[in-house]
Amino acid sequence: MKPAELVNRQWILARVPDGPAREGDFAQRTIAVEELADGEALGRARWFTFEAAMRAWLAPPASRDGAAGSVPARGYPFRVQPGQVMAGPAVVEIVVSRRPDLTPGELVRNAMFGWQEYVRIGAAQPVQRLDPAIPVDRQLTALVGNGPTAYFGILDVGGVRAGDTVVVSGAAGATGSMAAQIARIAGACVISIAGGTEKCRWLVEDCRLDAAVNYRQEPVSERLRQLCPDAIDVFFDGVGGSVLEAAIDNMADHGRIVVCGQTAAYDGVQAPAGPRNLFELVTRRVRMQGYLLSDFAARMDEAQQALADWLASGELVGRSEVHEGFENAPRAFLRLFNGEGTGKQLLRL
Amino acid sequence: MKPAELVNRQWILARVPDGPAREGDFAQRTIAVEELADGEALGRARWFTFEAAMRAWLAPPASRDGAAGSVPARGYPFRVQPGQVMAGPAVVEIVVSRRPDLTPGELVRNAMFGWQEYVRIGAAQPVQRLDPAIPVDRQLTALVGNGPTAYFGILDVGGVRAGDTVVVSGAAGATGSMAAQIARIAGACVISIAGGTEKCRWLVEDCRLDAAVNYRQEPVSERLRQLCPDAIDVFFDGVGGSVLEAAIDNMADHGRIVVCGQTAAYDGVQAPAGPRNLFELVTRRVRMQGYLLSDFAARMDEAQQALADWLASGELVGRSEVHEGFENAPRAFLRLFNGEGTGKQLLRL
Repeated sequence: MKPAELVNRQWILARVPDGPAREGDFAQRTIAVEELADGEALGRARWFTFEAAMRAWLAPPASRDGAAGSVPARGYPFRVQPGQVMAGPAVVEIVVSRRPDLTPGELVRNAMFGWQEYVRIGAAQPVQRLDPAIPVDRQLTALVGNGPTAYFGILDVGGVRAGDTVVVSGAAGATGSMAAQIARIAGACVISIAGGTEKCRWLVEDCRLDAAVNYRQEPVSERLRQLCPDAIDVFFDGVGGSVLEAAIDNMADHGRIVVCGQTAAYDGVQAPAGPRNLFELVTRRVRMQGYLLSDFAARMDEAQQALADWLASGELVGRSEVHEGFENAPRAFLRLFNGEGTGKQLLRL
Repeated sequence: MKPAELVNRQWILARVPDGPAREGDFAQRTIAVEELADGEALGRARWFTFEAAMRAWLAPPASRDGAAGSVPARGYPFRVQPGQVMAGPAVVEIVVSRRPDLTPGELVRNAMFGWQEYVRIGAAQPVQRLDPAIPVDRQLTALVGNGPTAYFGILDVGGVRAGDTVVVSGAAGATGSMAAQIARIAGACVISIAGGTEKCRWLVEDCRLDAAVNYRQEPVSERLRQLCPDAIDVFFDGVGGSVLEAAIDNMADHGRIVVCGQTAAYDGVQAPAGPRNLFELVTRRVRMQGYLLSDFAARMDEAQQALADWLASGELVGRSEVHEGFENAPRAFLRLFNGEGTGKQLLRL
């Protein structure tokens, strides 16, 4: 099989979304696979995985537009431009290798392989080997990306300890569900926030959290006050907006807010208003801390080992939705924003 | 002089402001001074001082009202109710004492003596002695309250080091002007934000800061980007709202935001929208930290000694406006919100 004979299908960004992202913002194209240079390898995509933060790559952050006195800011360090292949994590099987450390048949992952059927892997491009002993979907759900992000967010950034009251937003999502369960394993009382009755049932029954608040049907601030009579020690936030405001209403003195994501701000032209009660950060001496998984790269093995152990013992449960077929990549991605998806969204090719 | 023969004038809160606070929200009343119990002392007010945070005592935090799904929250720990004496710091001269540690003629301060001509000081009520060797207005401007708040905010919460780029909002105010100068003394490059040409002139020429941005005339985010090409390491924020949003646009990786106050949110029924760009806290791993001076009570002497030394050497300059007469207390207080006041607002009785 010579690469030059292969045809590569790609999903490109067709246009910058002018509101919530839609399938029509993406388009397919077909190009030839180029010859490999010495040291390169060719991978064939087997899995795509999707993260809400990828939405932020599709446009200038909405907060820039219309803010009084604002100008285009430093902004997010990465953008997908119209005409470029949509970026995102993928697992590929090595099919041709001129790179000594990669063997045909191996499965490797990179967070930027993108939405395409064939990937040319550069001589120095870092890749992450999957563990052949663990089912791929299980690894993608809990052991890479979301799982370690939750692990360091709860235990390091949030400093959760036994006896803490912890609240997790976006708790039915891939990172939130891991974060909430890791807090429970650490000995915290854990209140989860999610949208929908079934998600809330899953969080309490299967993830064994202390309570779940359905933000679509319940007043979040009031419910948190009832459920957290001693206030919130750690709020793990993947959502932002009004959910963050409701949590700030209920923070304990010296509480910590772990800012993992702001999905409320991703999918639109104009980000929603931020929390109006930041003065409470002063009166309660609250710390808000943003972080990225890459800050903890040196400790990835520790996180993956702990997560694998918890999965094996049943203390930690993962949930994923596996979609099929290259053509469904945009549809699977958009389930992160339309409220339909529960747990990790995976696409098998 | 027997206390029972004295008449006490007081300013009370007449009504909860239904928008920006006005003079008519306060009213005077006259009552008799009660007999002192054993262990108590009577003080006669000599100075009132005013802080923006006092506005937050006059109403439930505005952020509670109208927020989707919100209910009255834990809120600020202290409220002045209509009919009660307006709370606030005052310096009194001891006129009668049945408390062994207080001697007639001494000047003592408490942050809660309130707006009244005579104060009954309880047997166990903590008071702070003023230094007879330093002019009172100078002490009130720099050595109590605002000065130590700025000291711990810049050096401890913000961790400012030589070479940092520091931005201070509300920089012509009593705390902001101290914070900006302490950052300069620590070796930082300091950009100040204030409203008005004269304030900006004072900040650059008299406080010797590197630059001043007039938020009423200049686009703040763009100006900060020009003035901070290496981005902001520490943002000391007393304002919040759109100024905070502009600073977040320009934060450096691992930057720190010191949340000292949120004056933009104090003076109205509905707090303005919070920053819409909190996602940038994630991408840049920014820490926001609220704090109160009381957290550093054990180190007050250290701060006051450092501030006094800097004042004596001329490295630190204070600025105050001294108003005269009990009847002008509301007017002096409101200068903190209408943009007219510069530096510490003091009232001499």
